[in-house]
Amino acid sequence: MTRSITRADLEALDRADPLRAFRDRFDLPEGVIYLDGNSLGAMPAATPARIREVVEDQWARDLIRSWNVHGWISLQQRIGAKIGRLIGALEGETIVADSTSINLFKLLEAALDLRSTRRVVVSETGNFPTDLYIAEGLLNHLGRGHTLRLAEPDDVEAAITDDAAVVMLTHVNYRTGRMYDLRRITERAHAQGAIMLWDLSHSTGAVPVDLSGAGADFAVGCGYKYLNGGPGAPAYLYVATRHQSHISPVLSGWLGHEAPFAFEPSYRPANGIERFIVGAPPILGLTALEVGVDVMLEASMDEVRAKSVRLTELFDALVTQEIGAGTFALVSPSAPEMRGSQLCYAHENGWPIMRALIDRGVIGDFRAPDILRFGFTPLYVGYVDVWNAVATLEAIVAERAWDAPQYHERALVT
Amino acid sequence: MTRSITRADLEALDRADPLRAFRDRFDLPEGVIYLDGNSLGAMPAATPARIREVVEDQWARDLIRSWNVHGWISLQQRIGAKIGRLIGALEGETIVADSTSINLFKLLEAALDLRSTRRVVVSETGNFPTDLYIAEGLLNHLGRGHTLRLAEPDDVEAAITDDAAVVMLTHVNYRTGRMYDLRRITERAHAQGAIMLWDLSHSTGAVPVDLSGAGADFAVGCGYKYLNGGPGAPAYLYVATRHQSHISPVLSGWLGHEAPFAFEPSYRPANGIERFIVGAPPILGLTALEVGVDVMLEASMDEVRAKSVRLTELFDALVTQEIGAGTFALVSPSAPEMRGSQLCYAHENGWPIMRALIDRGVIGDFRAPDILRFGFTPLYVGYVDVWNAVATLEAIVAERAWDAPQYHERALVT
Repeated sequence: MTRSITRADLEALDRADPLRAFRDRFDLPEGVIYLDGNSLGAMPAATPARIREVVEDQWARDLIRSWNVHGWISLQQRIGAKIGRLIGALEGETIVADSTSINLFKLLEAALDLRSTRRVVVSETGNFPTDLYIAEGLLNHLGRGHTLRLAEPDDVEAAITDDAAVVMLTHVNYRTGRMYDLRRITERAHAQGAIMLWDLSHSTGAVPVDLSGAGADFAVGCGYKYLNGGPGAPAYLYVATRHQSHISPVLSGWLGHEAPFAFEPSYRPANGIERFIVGAPPILGLTALEVGVDVMLEASMDEVRAKSVRLTELFDALVTQEIGAGTFALVSPSAPEMRGSQLCYAHENGWPIMRALIDRGVIGDFRAPDILRFGFTPLYVGYVDVWNAVATLEAIVAERAWDAPQYHERALVT
Repeated sequence: MTRSITRADLEALDRADPLRAFRDRFDLPEGVIYLDGNSLGAMPAATPARIREVVEDQWARDLIRSWNVHGWISLQQRIGAKIGRLIGALEGETIVADSTSINLFKLLEAALDLRSTRRVVVSETGNFPTDLYIAEGLLNHLGRGHTLRLAEPDDVEAAITDDAAVVMLTHVNYRTGRMYDLRRITERAHAQGAIMLWDLSHSTGAVPVDLSGAGADFAVGCGYKYLNGGPGAPAYLYVATRHQSHISPVLSGWLGHEAPFAFEPSYRPANGIERFIVGAPPILGLTALEVGVDVMLEASMDEVRAKSVRLTELFDALVTQEIGAGTFALVSPSAPEMRGSQLCYAHENGWPIMRALIDRGVIGDFRAPDILRFGFTPLYVGYVDVWNAVATLEAIVAERAWDAPQYHERALVT
């Protein structure tokens, strides 16, 4: 029999952790183990001062001149380029703009345009709802007889046939944490003549992504999860250089124009990735996002991934060791190479159990109908945190704390 | 001959100004006369503390729980309702979301859908470029043979004929300041069976707007001009109650779903104005916007308008009195009831003159090819400011300061 995992083991891992110093780069409340960075990342310690500077020194003092003197006008490009380094993009292939949903719309529309003789969009049944909703809305409004072909993860490859215009997938599933082989699926899409559109919302900053290596076409992603960009941070998008000049953006706003301040009567798309900008850049949101991205860029993505794998393995092993194998059903793949930086368990009392955990300082989240979701952000989650989180869960199980009526009240946001 | 306007006259007006106390509600740099609030509004003095609270107390301390406990999830509705009070909307007809350009796209697409047998969009030749670009992009991508019919302001009414699906106009023109009669044009559009879509970017917070009184259909507008919401603040949109349930949003994102956290596989639009939300709300931008809107709501819009008219009348009279009638050609309508809260003058040296003005602390802006643009925000621009601004302009003319080579360098953002 394998030796039990002890708290001392985890203390030793924390001491040896090469990412240990990053914990102090975040301002987290005392007594909280934050396992929800996959929903809203924690606040980098440098964020308040940076926002203060932009608000009180730049906006208040330099007013309209800030667009030039403080480089506001090129923030989307600058931060986009930094995010590009996290996902294997080449220069000029990434930009920050709008929300993930809106970026999905832009690129799905562009992909359909590039494959105008085809009528099928392939995606996954359990894809994040907004991805499916955006596709549904676009296809209905185009009114050209497109269909959305949804498959279970194991059947996705087979569903990509030579009638597919676009394959639109989330690399790491929001609910299960299951991760696709990005290169393999991209190759399958290309072999069938389809455009591949990846949603990296649960990947960037959590797992290594190499879009160039995979020959990817399009990608989008979220700024407020593992990038720690703040609530509702702007999103980003990626378009491989070879496609850019062939796309006439459907959301053809003035800041995507080749010469926005010439105020020309007709739209001329900017030469590069800038054509995917629409309206005025949200400077406050961009400011916070850049701080988060900068912290992320200081870390080695290989070390992040290695620690993430270890954290999830240990958490799951401890759930079995301390609580037993039968109580929580692991919904995430059991092989770490098949999943992102999260673990999900099904339990019929998922909602009140998560309420009880949060009450005791272990913050994860709940996804309907019965999923307890735990995200592991290696920059600020440590090994002893894993021990303490499982110990808290074990106590809740031992006490049947989910019977307490206050944990059954529902919240607007879950 | 009329008596000359004196500085003492303007001092007396400042003393009697019922809006005078609002000047202290804004943090403006010493020695600056800010006549560019129609491009980027000044910072309300309350903004930094409010942002600090949201960043350092809410995001950092309460993390993901903030969506519920600090009401983040309903900020767009709350601020939207406040903006609705400034434009004569009824409850549930306004919401904050995305950028002006994206909101234009949503509502133009919806309007074309509501008038699906018609193929003409009427607008103005000199409309703000993004309005025209967005229409151009949408019409091209729909590929249903729609045309954009552009008319000069005086010819717009005649251009609204019974083949028009939508009339899309900016209420106050960004370049000239010319203002349409909102009720009259709306009635004309309705008489011809068209949907009326107003862009209120240069109106809200500057001139009284009564959408309900005018029987308006749709409107959009910008948060970072007269609402003082900060650089790249989120925008807003208005949809009259009678239309809401008939619109299936083209940008059908998850937060516009009737039950976003049920994570249902299919899109069901929310029951009311919330269906026009797409992705996650930008909390930092919303926070700053709310402060600006709150300040605005404390002022009487009638007093704002009365002061705005007086400021522009005095500025123009002083330009004539101090500089002479021939130097600067007024591009804005000379009748105050025909214009918003700005004045525009053409001058062949418009660019270097504006550079020289800014160098001397009078901040307006330049719009190609030759327009000097001055915006008057009655909450923080006073009567003596007008005197001093014209005196500075007069000195520049007297010295031919525009000959200085440093004023001829171009900037990215004008």
